[in-house]
Amino acid sequence: MPVYNAPIRDMRFVFYELLDGAELQQLPGFDEVDEETLVAILEEAGRFCAEQLLPINRSGDEEACCYEDGSVRTPQGFKTTYTAFIKAGWNSIAFDPEYGGQGLPKSLHVMVDEMINATNMSFGLYPGLTHGAWTALSSYASDRLKDHYFPKMAEGIWSGTMCLTEPHSGTDLALLRTKAVPQDDGSYLISGSKIFITAGEHDLTENIVHLVLARTPDAPPGIKGISLFLVPKLLDDNQGKPKTPNGVSCGSIEHKMGIKASATCTMNFDSAQGWLVGEVNQGMRAMFKMMNTERLAVGIQGIGIAEAAYQNAAHYARERLQGRAPGGATHPDLPADPLTVHPDVRRMLLTMRSYAQGMRALGLWIARELDIAGKHPDADRRRQADGFIALMTPVAKALFTDLGTEVANLGVQVFGGHGYIREHGMEQFVRDARIAQLYEGTNGIQAMDLAGRKLPMEDGRLIRHLLDPINAYLDSRAHDERLTKFVEPLKTATIQLDRATTHILQAGRNAPAEIGSAATPYLRLLGITALAYLWARMAETGLAGSHGTEAEFYRAKVKTARFFIEHLLPQTHGLTASVLAGASSLMDFDDEAW
Amino acid sequence: MPVYNAPIRDMRFVFYELLDGAELQQLPGFDEVDEETLVAILEEAGRFCAEQLLPINRSGDEEACCYEDGSVRTPQGFKTTYTAFIKAGWNSIAFDPEYGGQGLPKSLHVMVDEMINATNMSFGLYPGLTHGAWTALSSYASDRLKDHYFPKMAEGIWSGTMCLTEPHSGTDLALLRTKAVPQDDGSYLISGSKIFITAGEHDLTENIVHLVLARTPDAPPGIKGISLFLVPKLLDDNQGKPKTPNGVSCGSIEHKMGIKASATCTMNFDSAQGWLVGEVNQGMRAMFKMMNTERLAVGIQGIGIAEAAYQNAAHYARERLQGRAPGGATHPDLPADPLTVHPDVRRMLLTMRSYAQGMRALGLWIARELDIAGKHPDADRRRQADGFIALMTPVAKALFTDLGTEVANLGVQVFGGHGYIREHGMEQFVRDARIAQLYEGTNGIQAMDLAGRKLPMEDGRLIRHLLDPINAYLDSRAHDERLTKFVEPLKTATIQLDRATTHILQAGRNAPAEIGSAATPYLRLLGITALAYLWARMAETGLAGSHGTEAEFYRAKVKTARFFIEHLLPQTHGLTASVLAGASSLMDFDDEAW
Repeated sequence: MPVYNAPIRDMRFVFYELLDGAELQQLPGFDEVDEETLVAILEEAGRFCAEQLLPINRSGDEEACCYEDGSVRTPQGFKTTYTAFIKAGWNSIAFDPEYGGQGLPKSLHVMVDEMINATNMSFGLYPGLTHGAWTALSSYASDRLKDHYFPKMAEGIWSGTMCLTEPHSGTDLALLRTKAVPQDDGSYLISGSKIFITAGEHDLTENIVHLVLARTPDAPPGIKGISLFLVPKLLDDNQGKPKTPNGVSCGSIEHKMGIKASATCTMNFDSAQGWLVGEVNQGMRAMFKMMNTERLAVGIQGIGIAEAAYQNAAHYARERLQGRAPGGATHPDLPADPLTVHPDVRRMLLTMRSYAQGMRALGLWIARELDIAGKHPDADRRRQADGFIALMTPVAKALFTDLGTEVANLGVQVFGGHGYIREHGMEQFVRDARIAQLYEGTNGIQAMDLAGRKLPMEDGRLIRHLLDPINAYLDSRAHDERLTKFVEPLKTATIQLDRATTHILQAGRNAPAEIGSAATPYLRLLGITALAYLWARMAETGLAGSHGTEAEFYRAKVKTARFFIEHLLPQTHGLTASVLAGASSLMDFDDEAW
Repeated sequence: MPVYNAPIRDMRFVFYELLDGAELQQLPGFDEVDEETLVAILEEAGRFCAEQLLPINRSGDEEACCYEDGSVRTPQGFKTTYTAFIKAGWNSIAFDPEYGGQGLPKSLHVMVDEMINATNMSFGLYPGLTHGAWTALSSYASDRLKDHYFPKMAEGIWSGTMCLTEPHSGTDLALLRTKAVPQDDGSYLISGSKIFITAGEHDLTENIVHLVLARTPDAPPGIKGISLFLVPKLLDDNQGKPKTPNGVSCGSIEHKMGIKASATCTMNFDSAQGWLVGEVNQGMRAMFKMMNTERLAVGIQGIGIAEAAYQNAAHYARERLQGRAPGGATHPDLPADPLTVHPDVRRMLLTMRSYAQGMRALGLWIARELDIAGKHPDADRRRQADGFIALMTPVAKALFTDLGTEVANLGVQVFGGHGYIREHGMEQFVRDARIAQLYEGTNGIQAMDLAGRKLPMEDGRLIRHLLDPINAYLDSRAHDERLTKFVEPLKTATIQLDRATTHILQAGRNAPAEIGSAATPYLRLLGITALAYLWARMAETGLAGSHGTEAEFYRAKVKTARFFIEHLLPQTHGLTASVLAGASSLMDFDDEAW
């Protein structure tokens, strides 16, 4: 069975030593969340994930969800574990205390989420969807709906879904056809079919709260005619118990590459009773609210898988004896040296490690800004946080999930042929991680969101939320010789990023194809540069601690940083060249010749 | 079901227009293989693969091989199709006519192999292993063994295996423990356990010929004490029929990520009778002979999957309507435009296309040199071909299989969420392709073979077999303005490759860790530069044909070349930087800190 040790020391390092997480306590409502409390919660969460979620990850993959006559049975152990999960309060960490939530910081929620995804990504999707639905409802639903649904959702005995996709309408929601017919009592009758609905039907909760995109009868065509509705699986009976079927049925579940313990459902709505969330024809706004939260959450899945794959690969490489070190045996008493003596294995491990830890730093930076955006007393500071979040959400989603897949694949590679065998669990990481590049908007869509929607915002100045802190850092460290080997390559990458940004903003103004052509390499260029900035700063913090009581931990930070800067950051050269090469060789290809 | 059209026009282009394949006919024994004959065979092969192998690819994956009481049942349809396959002669294309083979060129074999892998990689492994075993036997086995085994292997009614790996001995064969005890009659009794044996047991043939690495009682330790033995599953009875069990049994099969219709077996040898192949303690030589053939064959698996993924992604992207073109609707009459209007989708398709076609060109270049090395009357020309093959075999294996996985993943991405669903077959390409990066020596081992073994050969001049033709081409085209945009970036990459080579040769002399540290990015740098060279030449050939009767085909070559040179070749910058960064940040990491 795969190993897992929750990376709490690293989370503390990032949050308190790199990001000034202590400031968090000064935000309203967080005064009790000091470092000791936060670490105690993380330790409890780490224990729960390692002891309860990890043991049913492989078995859940093998057994998968089972569909029978409209019902979905989750794999053995999922129901018991889910009950333990909600009892322990893990479902309600970040929910509003007004409705029974614990109101803890989103930063903490992100850390716990990483652990859940590292140990059982399929499991995490059930509470994850409830969280997404909550986010959309909390901004747009009436108090009546909130009062009715939130307490049960916080408790975890009712779960949530997002019903967007239809067979002919995936990325392009303008094509969706599900209908909502208004009734005299103010409710609507919803009819239509949705596909790819995560947690659309399952046996973990007594009711399921569907958020459904649909069109009212006189809605304008396209995305301007889409409204959002809350449609419960079961309606309440006279005693307020969810009993009465509401015309919502699961027609089948998908057989997928991975996340097999997560039910991906075809949902049929047949005059199901629903209630409007927000205003008519304003469904996309609410959906985007939910999607933004979910996009960061999906990014965190990439971090979780990367961390798990790294830990297992490192563990295996230390134990597995094969071959001899390039300079001669390091363990002549053993039949062979451990895999860790081989430079190419070290390259793989350091790639995995530096990506996983770098992503964690960037993910927590974004999460901290989410807390600030939600709670900070100063409106300017909140706006600044909002800008940073808007810029970095598509990056977190696409970069983290692309790297999650890369790291999972390296994990298989470190195991050699054994990595391909199901029993070791390494190939499951690859299969599970793969979905995260696709759902909540494919990574190509994220890149378009970044290059086409976010870059032009604030008159093209949104990118300053990233470039300004990097440039300020570069200026302040320009004469620190200990840092030259980190700061100089970062400076080169930052200049490349600046140039690529200008190219997209200028070329895209007259030729929109220039944006889409550059979007994917641009997103990665931005993401890798952001990681390099964080690695430079982590190296600096690491240097400061390299002679103290935890010298090994800090020295490893410095060394991982050096590897990242020397061996991974240079990919920015090729990415920049691709952005600057422009659209013509992409758009010029004749459609008949594909 | 996935689509497949055998890319015969492209094979002809590469072989006859790019590589002067017509010279092939002048080699002894190939005088009847003119273009017309070759194309006729390819058409027949393409039909067989599309009509017989493709339909059982998905079903074979779903059903998988089944183990019961020592027997392995291949999925439905495999036995019938295998019988049709050998009856049609596809098993014996390249085998020696002396033993019933057709003696056709290896180049042709590689083209047919690509089609087999594109339509059913699992199926292809059964005849593929027979081919590998044949190669080792043909160089080292006694005439008595050849006379007995080759006719049945050529006919395909007996199949072959390679039994190398043991649980504790994968990459490091020095650790292997299987014993071979000599008998008075000149045979040996083989005892030991082997794992990961492809086609070790199955129901397709009446006998299985195992090639087994083992140690004789007084063998020296390590790889110098390894001998190769031929061990049949069944011994002949008095009538020469394979009837008598020979102490060879299959203990279990592996449950794997992919290639599920290929039986991966644990094989137990319990005093099984075997015969020495070659000389005692010289088993590694024979094994490497076989491995080199197999390594190119594994590379071809990467090409096959890449071609199949590309064709299906292109097909889907043309049909699927979603969103509108960046400059406004191209199909205002339809509810949405096809996916091909989106620049980022075009980027994915062109990446897939340029990798698949570029790999085909490089693969056929190597295959042609194999024919020359085997048949050319001039010893110098044969030696030159041998040098090129030695250099490029690890590149073909690792680069093609890495790119096979990348392209398969892009195929899933073009399909969006639908790519993750098993029914469309796109995720199977990812799972099947993944093994090719692991078996026959992991891609890290290939990189070490290239950087550590091949580069220093011929006093460090082996690389000239690639650099000389590239430099000659660059010189001869230096003043051709039509080609500047292809030739200039190629020149930059070639200078980088030269510099990286020199670095490895020099730094590696005193510090062997420098070789392993640089090996993986170096292999890719070399491989991408080789593809760029071929793309520059394909662009030139394409320009020449751009106004003829097949203008569309040739123009697509030029445009694909331009995309490759502008958007993919620039990755060499980062690879070069990583090679030149050296080993220190890899080797410096403390082993306790992983």
